[in-house]
Order: sequence, then structure tokens, then C-alpha cells
Amino acid sequence: MNTIGLIAFALVGSSKAIREEFDVFGIVIVGLAMAFAGGATRDLLVTRIPLVLQSPIEISLGLLGVGLAITLSIILPSPDTHPVTLVADAIGLAAFATTGAIVATEAGVSAFGVVAIATINAVGGGALADILLDRAPFILFEDFYASCAVLGGSAYWVLGTLGATESTAAVVCAVMTIVSRLAAVTYDWHLPTVQELGLLND
Amino acid sequence: MNTIGLIAFALVGSSKAIREEFDVFGIVIVGLAMAFAGGATRDLLVTRIPLVLQSPIEISLGLLGVGLAITLSIILPSPDTHPVTLVADAIGLAAFATTGAIVATEAGVSAFGVVAIATINAVGGGALADILLDRAPFILFEDFYASCAVLGGSAYWVLGTLGATESTAAVVCAVMTIVSRLAAVTYDWHLPTVQELGLLND
Amino acid sequence: MNTIGLIAFALVGSSKAIREEFDVFGIVIVGLAMAFAGGATRDLLVTRIPLVLQSPIEISLGLLGVGLAITLSIILPSPDTHPVTLVADAIGLAAFATTGAIVATEAGVSAFGVVAIATINAVGGGALADILLDRAPFILFEDFYASCAVLGGSAYWVLGTLGATESTAAVVCAVMTIVSRLAAVTYDWHLPTVQELGLLND
Repeated sequence: MNTIGLIAFALVGSSKAIREEFDVFGIVIVGLAMAFAGGATRDLLVTRIPLVLQSPIEISLGLLGVGLAITLSIILPSPDTHPVTLVADAIGLAAFATTGAIVATEAGVSAFGVVAIATINAVGGGALADILLDRAPFILFEDFYASCAVLGGSAYWVLGTLGATESTAAVVCAVMTIVSRLAAVTYDWHLPTVQELGLLND
Repeated sequence: MNTIGLIAFALVGSSKAIREEFDVFGIVIVGLAMAFAGGATRDLLVTRIPLVLQSPIEISLGLLGVGLAITLSIILPSPDTHPVTLVADAIGLAAFATTGAIVATEAGVSAFGVVAIATINAVGGGALADILLDRAPFILFEDFYASCAVLGGSAYWVLGTLGATESTAAVVCAVMTIVSRLAAVTYDWHLPTVQELGLLND
Repeated sequence: MNTIGLIAFALVGSSKAIREEFDVFGIVIVGLAMAFAGGATRDLLVTRIPLVLQSPIEISLGLLGVGLAITLSIILPSPDTHPVTLVADAIGLAAFATTGAIVATEAGVSAFGVVAIATINAVGGGALADILLDRAPFILFEDFYASCAVLGGSAYWVLGTLGATESTAAVVCAVMTIVSRLAAVTYDWHLPTVQELGLLND
């Protein structure tokens, strides 16, 4: 699960950096930041040394994603908005929401803690990538992005509480996240602002 | 103390996000980020799992503050600059400076550590909220904001060193922070830049 | 090693804040953030309480650097681009890359972990300073900045693996970092973007 997420997010992060014409070092950094920032934050929140600093496999997977992004940028016209990248992003989101929910449950945090860590694991990388690119994190503007991870993380907790096995809960979490995300992109879902709700006195 | 701070800061953060026309999810996130980022950073600095991920009460208080902000945005014309919000912000600042000083003292850090953690607890949430809103953190421009938390944290450390009880030190810390903050807002205090000090060779 | 880095980076951070006409409090904060953010992040990554919160000496060295920056801003025309500041920055980079490599090796992380922590220790402060100044972190645009710390950290790991003593590895790490950085500034080295490599289909 984590493996897929690492490759997918490194690919998406590097594609963004290529579009912004960052140099090769910047492309590698933004790709790795997107792949690892969410998971490293998750590990820090449950006070353990980030896995990426301990396992040589993790970093290799991230670099593989960076390499894929550079390859894609050569063969595709605008890779960062291409369906391949959008799908990779949705897959990464689902994979990391699930990984986060599993780690948080093992650390014994509250229900909110499980949902929060699943969401942070899923969206933390994208938020850091945007900050490195000097933009407001798109997760705050793209309505059904973080929300999808919240849905997945909540499903994981509900199923776990109802007595489902870890693998059942993980599959449902991943499927809910990716389906809601792809549906949101396809049908252009969005949440209303307070202004749109017509509640403000103008 | 912490309770008051959580509600107050969630209210202030959400009000900022409403003004920026963020959607409902963004409003909740900025409110919770402002309420919890300072405390979570404090907990990470003393290497413990953030309280907000463990206690269901904490998150409920944050959501109460977000709800208050949405209610206020309906009944007040410009809630984010309204006196209610300014006072809530000063209360949150004082409450979190005090909580930070208490936790830091228990963790056994140095005098600078106590003041630094009190200040980070107090201003960390506002700084993150600003970064999420893609603005330079106002704590660097509003002179007597972080300075008030520094004052409060220093008072806590001095009193603790002189042998005062924790509750005495806490009350003095909170009062110094809130009074200095409200005075700064009322009388528009500011610190000079190096340029204003007339020291630069133009 | 760490001592030199703290003074040098506090000096560079404060110089940047002075140019941006921050007030005195802001100048102190940006200086200290630049001096301590990298090391604090390093400590959090190996899950220990940041040294700066425990040792009164560390913070005094940071404040000394801030004081030097204010003094320099009075006697030099544009201190933030002056050779003194550029050299101080290169010294800080080398000192912190070395400190990071030593701490990471002691914590027993992987080869990538050693290089990553050395680099984060070296460039984390500058990146945070830029975020506080509301700019895209220059480490992503200045090609041979973080790369120099990567070189130094890699050298440290290679020498350690080959059986060199800690002090030999430390000296080589520091020398490689500072020499590559000063050479990059002097000869205006840069890495190519993917666009410049001529690989993209236009």
C-alpha cells in the first residue's frame, strides 16, 4: 500500500516542479517532499523516527517516482494535468490515508486521532510541495481532496470499532478514498463557501 | 486555561478563513489548525504524542469554536476585525502562553526553553493559519503579539524560579500576556525597525 | 562546529530580515529561526528534545549572531549581499551539515537518513527564514546550496563506512561543503532544468 503511494506521490510532486521549471535538484526535492512529508509527519506525531530515514527501500521507491515523472515529461505534452498524473495522485491519496489509519490505530490514539493522522499522511506531502512552490496549499481550495482522506480514515475507524479485520478496514478505506476522489474530479464536485450558503449579511 | 484558548483560537482562525471565502472544509481546517498547531508543536518539542490526537474533548472544543465563528459571520458585518474576535484572540494568546509555560516547565527545559515553548504554543497556530492563507505570518509584523507571549512566559519562569506556586505563576503569566496585548491593540504600540532607529547609513 | 554554525546563520537570517524592514522583534525571530530550525528539526527526526531548548549556551550564541547582524547593518551598505554574509552562510552550511551527519550517525539511521538529516540540518533554517519572509525557499532555486550539504553528508557516510574516524569524516564533510559552496558562488555554477536539457517536446 505504502509502496504504491510513494511512487505515485513522488511522480506527482516532480511533475509539478518540472512545470515550474525547477532545476534537477529542485525536481528531486519536491518529488521526495511530496512522497515523504506526510509519512514523516505521521511518524513524528506518534513519536517514532521516520521510516524513510531508516529504510533504504523507501527512498529508492521515491526516486523511482521522480524518474517516472521526468520520463513522462518527455513523452507527454503537459504531464501535471494529464489523466495519468491525476489518477496517480488519487492512488497516492488512498494509499497514504490507509497507511496513516493503520499506523495511528497501532499507536492507540483517539477516533479523531486516527482520522487526523490518516488525513495528514495523505495530504501533508501535497501541502508541503505547494509551500515549496510558493503557492497556497491547493488542498484548501480543491474541496474533495482532503475530504476524501477524511472519509477513508473515518471508514477505517468505524469498521475497526465494529470488529472488522485490519485488512478489510484497509481495503474499504482505500476504495472509499480513491472512488470519492475520482468521482469528485470527474463530476467537478465542490463544497459551498459560507458566502454561497447565502448566510452572510451583505 | 487550555479549554478557553482552544475555543478562542478556533473562532479566530475560522473567521479569517471565512473572510478569504474558503469553503466549509477549509474553514474547519484553518480553525482547527489555529487551535491545535501551537499545542501540537509544543508536544512534539517535548517529544510526546500531541494531546489533540488522544483526547476527544480537545477536538470537540475546537469544533465548538469553528461553529461560533460561522454563527458570528452571520450576525456580524466583518467578524474578523470585530472587537469580539480581537478579544478572543488575546484570550487565546494568554491561555496558550500559560499552557505552554506549564508543559515546558514539567519537561525540565532551560529558561529559554520555557519562554520559547510558551511563545510557540501561543503563536504557532496563528502563524500556520497565515501560511495556509498564503500570507506572511502577521506575528512578524504585528509587533506586540508574540512579544506579549514572551513577556508572559518570562514572568512564569521568573516567578517559578523565585519559588511561586504553579497557579500563581500561571495567573500572572496569563494576566501579563492579555493586558499587554489589549494595551498594544488599544494604543497601537509598535517596535521600531532598524531603519526607524536611524542607525542605517542611507 | 555547531557553535560557528549558530552564530553564522543567526547573522545571515537577521540580515535578511533587516533588508525586509522587519521590526526588531522580527529580526530576532528570523535570525533565531535560521540558526535553530535546522537543528531542531534534526532533533525531532531522531526523536529527542531540541538541544536549543535545553542548553542556555546555544541561545546565547544565536543572539550573538543577531547582534552582529545589526552591527553589520550599521557599518555596511547592503549587508545581506556582502561577501561577509555570503561567507558566513557557507560556513554555517558546512558546520550544520557536519553536525547533522554526526547526530544522524549516532542515531543509527540508514545511509539516506545520514545524508537527509545532514542536509535538513544545513538548509532547514534558511528555508524557514524564507517562508517567514513570504518567499519561495531560495534553496530550491540556488542550485549549489543544498547540493553542497548533500555532497558533504555523502562524504561523511562514505568515510564512516570505510572505517575513518568521526573527526576525519567531520573535517572532510565540512571542507567539501564549504569549498563546493564557495566555488558555486564564485563561478556561478548551476544545474540544468529539464527544459534546458532539451528533453521536453515543445
